[in-house]
Amino acid sequence: MTVSDRWLLPDGVEDILPPLAGQIESLRRDVMDTCQRWGYQLVIPPLIEYVESLLTGTGHDLELQTFKLTDQLTGRMMGVRADMTPQAARIDAHTLGQEGITRLCYAGHVLHTRPKHMLASRTPIQAGCELFGSASESADLEVISLMLEALRVAGLSRVHLDLAHVAIYESLIGEAEFDRTTSAAVFDAMGRKSVPELDRLLGDCPEGSAGARLRELARVSGGAEALTEAHRILSGASDNLNAALEQLGRVAEMLQRDFPEVSFGFDFCELRGYNYHTGLVFAAYVPGHGDSIGKGGRYDAIGSDFGRARPATGFSLDIRALVSLGTRPINHRKAVWAPAEEDSELEQAISELRKTDTVIRALPEDTKADPSTRGCDRKLVKQGDRWVVQGLG
Amino acid sequence: MTVSDRWLLPDGVEDILPPLAGQIESLRRDVMDTCQRWGYQLVIPPLIEYVESLLTGTGHDLELQTFKLTDQLTGRMMGVRADMTPQAARIDAHTLGQEGITRLCYAGHVLHTRPKHMLASRTPIQAGCELFGSASESADLEVISLMLEALRVAGLSRVHLDLAHVAIYESLIGEAEFDRTTSAAVFDAMGRKSVPELDRLLGDCPEGSAGARLRELARVSGGAEALTEAHRILSGASDNLNAALEQLGRVAEMLQRDFPEVSFGFDFCELRGYNYHTGLVFAAYVPGHGDSIGKGGRYDAIGSDFGRARPATGFSLDIRALVSLGTRPINHRKAVWAPAEEDSELEQAISELRKTDTVIRALPEDTKADPSTRGCDRKLVKQGDRWVVQGLG
Repeated sequence: MTVSDRWLLPDGVEDILPPLAGQIESLRRDVMDTCQRWGYQLVIPPLIEYVESLLTGTGHDLELQTFKLTDQLTGRMMGVRADMTPQAARIDAHTLGQEGITRLCYAGHVLHTRPKHMLASRTPIQAGCELFGSASESADLEVISLMLEALRVAGLSRVHLDLAHVAIYESLIGEAEFDRTTSAAVFDAMGRKSVPELDRLLGDCPEGSAGARLRELARVSGGAEALTEAHRILSGASDNLNAALEQLGRVAEMLQRDFPEVSFGFDFCELRGYNYHTGLVFAAYVPGHGDSIGKGGRYDAIGSDFGRARPATGFSLDIRALVSLGTRPINHRKAVWAPAEEDSELEQAISELRKTDTVIRALPEDTKADPSTRGCDRKLVKQGDRWVVQGLG
Repeated sequence: MTVSDRWLLPDGVEDILPPLAGQIESLRRDVMDTCQRWGYQLVIPPLIEYVESLLTGTGHDLELQTFKLTDQLTGRMMGVRADMTPQAARIDAHTLGQEGITRLCYAGHVLHTRPKHMLASRTPIQAGCELFGSASESADLEVISLMLEALRVAGLSRVHLDLAHVAIYESLIGEAEFDRTTSAAVFDAMGRKSVPELDRLLGDCPEGSAGARLRELARVSGGAEALTEAHRILSGASDNLNAALEQLGRVAEMLQRDFPEVSFGFDFCELRGYNYHTGLVFAAYVPGHGDSIGKGGRYDAIGSDFGRARPATGFSLDIRALVSLGTRPINHRKAVWAPAEEDSELEQAISELRKTDTVIRALPEDTKADPSTRGCDRKLVKQGDRWVVQGLG
């Protein structure tokens, strides 16, 4: 092992240095404060849990993304959280066990076995909010509004929000009654939006059948015109499908009123990354960044796996990824340089300044240090018998 | 697998709920802000690293405490950080690579394979500061002062600080030239402060020898009188031993001046929990809490393992453990309840209030909800054509 090997970090794992670390901390605080002002209470779920509680009801994708560890106290298998939403659902269903509405928020590192895409981190900083106990559209609207508000706080303009509804795909695929192999192939092709493959798989389905509708819907996405087109494709289909479409339209309209700067789009067969969702889902995008910068939706099933069925909806963001977009102003506040000498009045002057300001104390090694290269723009100097702050000049 | 098994958390792993989670967040912020006002810059080291970088130069204890994972991208062994100090040292030595003094601070979860003691968490929230590039006593003094300041911020009075010096034991055991078995047995007995075992192991050492001095020193701890006693035991011993003692005395004296409310003690053969330390070390205690609530010290060797020898000293605290002492006032700020109805003026009133206050919006399920049980003490009501805030009354 050479010295140079020792400091190599794994792919997708990185040190976050100043000033970036400070910007992340600042956005993390602002997002959490925003969530709390909307009535969401902070919880801190654990980094590790037994895999049974961490992965119950969360789907296969999340299982692949979860690092496994052996508990040396019991020999049981534990996992490092790859997503905090199921943890919040467990806390709501079991640990808190409140009746009525419960609103929770959280922020912390999660760990992924593999990066989600080539440039993604394997240790994102997930922040999010979850609303439990309401099956209403108002709840969906609240969490989407709060996510858009958090993106405002992050300084993002030109946000695009895609709305989708997991029930549309689920309902059509159920109605189609394909064999398992075909269902899996359709799911896969749908996830990749591969129109040629869907044509091959579903091309023989008679017009008006669930299969034909799936094939047509997969081609449709975009703004209001896409919604109209989806209504045409699903006309005569079951009520719940049309109810889902109508919900998408209503929610977009109400959001547009409060967030006129956001553009809205619809995608009727979006499945990627929705591991445990059951209803209205959404994802936010900004120009020049391929991956979504925030996403979430309704997931009414996880709680029941913990013995308590609770309607639920929420969103989460990657604070690290948001900061890397560079849309927040950087805090350029400079520090005051204080000499090394021992003097009880100097100590007092430093203590007083540190109530509101940053003071860097010189050490014996600093005799030739240039305070301006150390983040200072002022210094403490003795004038007569008093210590005063002066520009470096 | 029954439902009840699914929500069992592993021993030493816990959900942190409101209001405790909020208190932890608040203390975490205040401690980090204090560190930054002393000139320490925030870094965010990764949750995982290859074991070679995570465990280089950190000693056997830390290796046992570190969970291991296989990197699926390379097949190499990674570890989940059990201590962030060595990560900060790696960042200083390699990633930043600055000349002169570097001050870093950090806060985050660490993970331990086993709890350190019966009631300890396996996922503590470690916050700390590290000062690199200064071998001076002023640097030691600065980090201890900053730790005591952080404990003040945490609302702790009646802090006791134990000072020790790793070089005393290292130097005497080196001089004694015991065989490996005896050295290991002495180290072990010293760690447990087992006087009978030390008597058995070292009882035959002639007076004035290094072994006899070790045996005598192990009996001595306490305030100023212990320091006098240690000076007697080490009189005629090598210069570096007496220099270490003198340093302990000087540092205690200077700290006493700035922190008159803190009591100071000395322990000359303290080894427990100092995995990679080389010089002056310290640990803070409060009445009624057996384990130290903050500790640190000088560790000049880790950097050299990363190819850059840098003197270093620092401290760390467990934010979770500090909050559990319950010495910080709880924030009892209450929220404003807002009705569910749709009204653009209500939306505006809520947005305005949320700039500084918490507003909880009623959902359709809340028709019978009692706002006072949901953390509210006021509500938004319509008076004429204006929305105003009223007491719940």
